[in-house]
Amino acid sequence: MSKTAKVSKQVDEKPTILITNDDGVTAPGIAALIEVAKQYGRVVVVAPDAPQSGMGHAITIGKPLRLNHVNLFGDVEAYQCSGTPVDCVKIAVDKVLHKKPDFCFSGINHGSNSSINVIYSGTMSAAMEAAIEGIPAVGFSYEDYSFDGDFSLAQQVANEVIHKMISNQIPQKALYNVNIPKIGLKKFKGIKACRQANAKWNENFVERLDPTGKKYFWLTGEFQNRDKGKDTDVWALTHGYASLVPIQYDLTHHDLLSKIKL
Amino acid sequence: MSKTAKVSKQVDEKPTILITNDDGVTAPGIAALIEVAKQYGRVVVVAPDAPQSGMGHAITIGKPLRLNHVNLFGDVEAYQCSGTPVDCVKIAVDKVLHKKPDFCFSGINHGSNSSINVIYSGTMSAAMEAAIEGIPAVGFSYEDYSFDGDFSLAQQVANEVIHKMISNQIPQKALYNVNIPKIGLKKFKGIKACRQANAKWNENFVERLDPTGKKYFWLTGEFQNRDKGKDTDVWALTHGYASLVPIQYDLTHHDLLSKIKL
Repeated sequence: MSKTAKVSKQVDEKPTILITNDDGVTAPGIAALIEVAKQYGRVVVVAPDAPQSGMGHAITIGKPLRLNHVNLFGDVEAYQCSGTPVDCVKIAVDKVLHKKPDFCFSGINHGSNSSINVIYSGTMSAAMEAAIEGIPAVGFSYEDYSFDGDFSLAQQVANEVIHKMISNQIPQKALYNVNIPKIGLKKFKGIKACRQANAKWNENFVERLDPTGKKYFWLTGEFQNRDKGKDTDVWALTHGYASLVPIQYDLTHHDLLSKIKL
Repeated sequence: MSKTAKVSKQVDEKPTILITNDDGVTAPGIAALIEVAKQYGRVVVVAPDAPQSGMGHAITIGKPLRLNHVNLFGDVEAYQCSGTPVDCVKIAVDKVLHKKPDFCFSGINHGSNSSINVIYSGTMSAAMEAAIEGIPAVGFSYEDYSFDGDFSLAQQVANEVIHKMISNQIPQKALYNVNIPKIGLKKFKGIKACRQANAKWNENFVERLDPTGKKYFWLTGEFQNRDKGKDTDVWALTHGYASLVPIQYDLTHHDLLSKIKL
């Protein structure tokens, strides 16, 4: 094959793009992401059939999964799955696509997944599962928790990141955590590559009594940023930028490893 | 206070040790860990009321939690919680101990959590949640999935690691993933500090039909180690060692971050 023929083949062959999320297949954020991604290739959606926020990297063990076709996004092939976001990626590869997609985009999440939230987020864990499979992946999250938020800035950022990733302007062999600030388009300063801020949640369980007088507890908490750095995702989001954090799934603390004597 | 008085106070005050797991409060592995840990301080148990394997870093959002006292471990204070392993750590700090424990030990898990399993494991995520709170934490896992396995080697390793951690012979400000091989005591070569092996699961969903003829799927898979290194946890476990991997919760891929141009 001549070089020219090879190039035109690459241009003709549109990539297969898997889309998922953790807010569920009916969340407006996934529709917003599909709208952007379908410009770049064949989009296939496999997303949870119910909200799965905070599911982290959970997988379903001990009970089976359901997978059903849904007709929600016009001509885009879509399925809802009874499992977690990570299950969705696994079943999409094995039972829907029967191959690895070229890219996996997760979101757009309703609410930020910056800093430590990356660990609790089903949206980010779905993207991480794709990365473990060797699929270039990005999780997108928008700082607005409401379901009737304005996704136009989030879509603009997703479009820029997806375009750069597909055209290989940013490394493809990676997983990115992209968060979009809730600000007006005019105040937006651009996308900034950052590190994960060292932040945590301070828990404060709220106690209630059921009708029989027995206690139960609601998990609530307050976000506490312990990190004063200007190179963090939290800093970027509070200063008019969208943040892009490259993420790894090798959890080894290599610096500490070299110091351990047993 | 004189230096002598301060030292003797430290010796007198036994540490508070939180114990949890993901196999549930009735699993033999947690009883084996309690037996070891109670030599070193005041042990308090808060563990799931049902198996929570593969729950990763999931937290419970959208429904409340139950927390009930159980009398399973003699004079050791213990509670079962309806939430995930991470929920157990959060509620233990806020509603049981009303302070951070001095240490958190999770396990002993029935089944290995080496390499990529660290990401799916509720046992390891509970330990990681403690680490995020600033609590020195270790997750222990034994390569035997059965519930009637022989925990004597796992207990010996847990004892050595807990002793070293409490006496500050290994750094306390960290989270460790400790896996114990299923081998005879005589063949055991010791504990080895390792990095996480680059391994993954190849999914293979098993399809079944329900009585109405509708499909459902069971998640199954095959573990695939892609890593030939002799410094990994998988290598250690297959060569007679227990593995100890220091783990971080900053997921930033710092090498890649320095290369991203946006």
